[in-house]
Amino acid sequence: MKLITFADSAGSRAGVLLDGGRVLDLGAAMPPARDMIGLIEGGAAMLAQVRALAANPPAGAVLPLAAVAIQAPIPRPRRNVFCVGRNYMDHVAEGDRTRGITQSEVPKYPQFFTKAGDTVIAPDALVPAHEGVTKWLDYEVELVAVIGKAGSDIPKEKALEHVFGWTIGNDVTGRDLQRRHGQWFKGKSLDRSCPLGPVIVPREDLDAADLAIGCRINGEQRQSSRTSKMIFDVKEIIHQLSAGFTLLPGDVIMTGTPEGVGYAMQPPQTLKPGDLMELEIEGIGVLTNRIAG
Amino acid sequence: MKLITFADSAGSRAGVLLDGGRVLDLGAAMPPARDMIGLIEGGAAMLAQVRALAANPPAGAVLPLAAVAIQAPIPRPRRNVFCVGRNYMDHVAEGDRTRGITQSEVPKYPQFFTKAGDTVIAPDALVPAHEGVTKWLDYEVELVAVIGKAGSDIPKEKALEHVFGWTIGNDVTGRDLQRRHGQWFKGKSLDRSCPLGPVIVPREDLDAADLAIGCRINGEQRQSSRTSKMIFDVKEIIHQLSAGFTLLPGDVIMTGTPEGVGYAMQPPQTLKPGDLMELEIEGIGVLTNRIAG
Repeated sequence: MKLITFADSAGSRAGVLLDGGRVLDLGAAMPPARDMIGLIEGGAAMLAQVRALAANPPAGAVLPLAAVAIQAPIPRPRRNVFCVGRNYMDHVAEGDRTRGITQSEVPKYPQFFTKAGDTVIAPDALVPAHEGVTKWLDYEVELVAVIGKAGSDIPKEKALEHVFGWTIGNDVTGRDLQRRHGQWFKGKSLDRSCPLGPVIVPREDLDAADLAIGCRINGEQRQSSRTSKMIFDVKEIIHQLSAGFTLLPGDVIMTGTPEGVGYAMQPPQTLKPGDLMELEIEGIGVLTNRIAG
Repeated sequence: MKLITFADSAGSRAGVLLDGGRVLDLGAAMPPARDMIGLIEGGAAMLAQVRALAANPPAGAVLPLAAVAIQAPIPRPRRNVFCVGRNYMDHVAEGDRTRGITQSEVPKYPQFFTKAGDTVIAPDALVPAHEGVTKWLDYEVELVAVIGKAGSDIPKEKALEHVFGWTIGNDVTGRDLQRRHGQWFKGKSLDRSCPLGPVIVPREDLDAADLAIGCRINGEQRQSSRTSKMIFDVKEIIHQLSAGFTLLPGDVIMTGTPEGVGYAMQPPQTLKPGDLMELEIEGIGVLTNRIAG
């Protein structure tokens, strides 16, 4: 099942992508699931109801996909987007090489930072070039875990129970700002720098442990890896992030990017106005955004 | 004028501390200013109305201070709390010494990180010891700027116009977590690790450029400095933080802590269950919290 948030002239609401270019409008079919966070907070029982409706959609609640605009599945997270840095070894190594380090050490602990929740934008929305602020805009494809069940001090073996589902995130970064300010928040939180979507696949429908993950820029394959190459897997990330810290339903966790980002290329590449970013994760879909200009 | 958020059996609302141990209940006197973010969004016109009411409080909207509980002035910020690290040179130096660095360099750019908005707690509320998660809990007194007017790319000379007022924050930190994870979010976002308050003093009422700032632990003076010793002053912080990033009314910015934190003492000190933290900034007041246990 593929869950979306969409909008038309009647506003924004959650839905299910159906076959044949159709959308099940949960605002019409099931008002308590009208928005994605409400749906997530409804837990397993609500998700089961949504599945039943999607299997047998009431005619009055089906819209043509072409008549709606897909938004980010969680258009405005209630908290900052949680992120993990340096979580694929080949990406650690390519970053180290730009600083003249040829023998990379495997990180012992995940590095957590955040992007402001307001930076989230929809699939196909424009990312500003921010030319006055950064000279070095870059992309990062990431598997995103959406939290379903609140919890703190979550043991590793129970961590996946706290995941509602999976989506794709683009951790657009101002590399010069990231480096200059030491802590990464500034370089990671430019306005509209967090494309998210296009769908959430419920955790029960997709084992995310070993999925193909990649990114194309203007059609050129730049990133191509597998989620099994994470240094800290989703279970470990949730375990460590939740230590003394309560995760909440609807929280968005980006799990790090593999190698192939622009700043580590020879010669280094920066995103430019008009560039097309296509981020793909097996079983989820393609998240497409363009740099404005 | 000293603005507060308070609660009693009728719920939470904004108010003004009056003399004689009294509180002006803005929920009763002026419903659009019922909550602090509403008051802030009301701008200069609403603040002027609040001032007029405070000067001549309607009898039906005055409560005894003893009958209410003071909450954090913004009990639940809508976004993460924005923070600046290493912003007083003597604090940079004491931190460097713990890593064997005796010649400290002056930071060239501010280091921005965040604390989850949910970590905010009230004056007099208990901070958990988090003993299972950190062995090294520490305090940090900080001048806090509360944003009043939205903006991005804010020039330095206009930055103060975007400040609604000033309060006090305690950036409670798990030092071992802060170090272990490299990026500081994890060590800075333990549940209930951000005491805030007790009041907001409007910017027009207090020049925050050179205020005494200090912290006592169990009555012992640990931190004692002046806000004029910031490396990046509030204007510079707002200017740099807002580059390509939109600040919003009600945003909370912690501006860094001076020297005297526990981990840099000889021998190092860690907060323990029962410890009393009293954080004071001239013209604002005292923010008091205890470690639970």
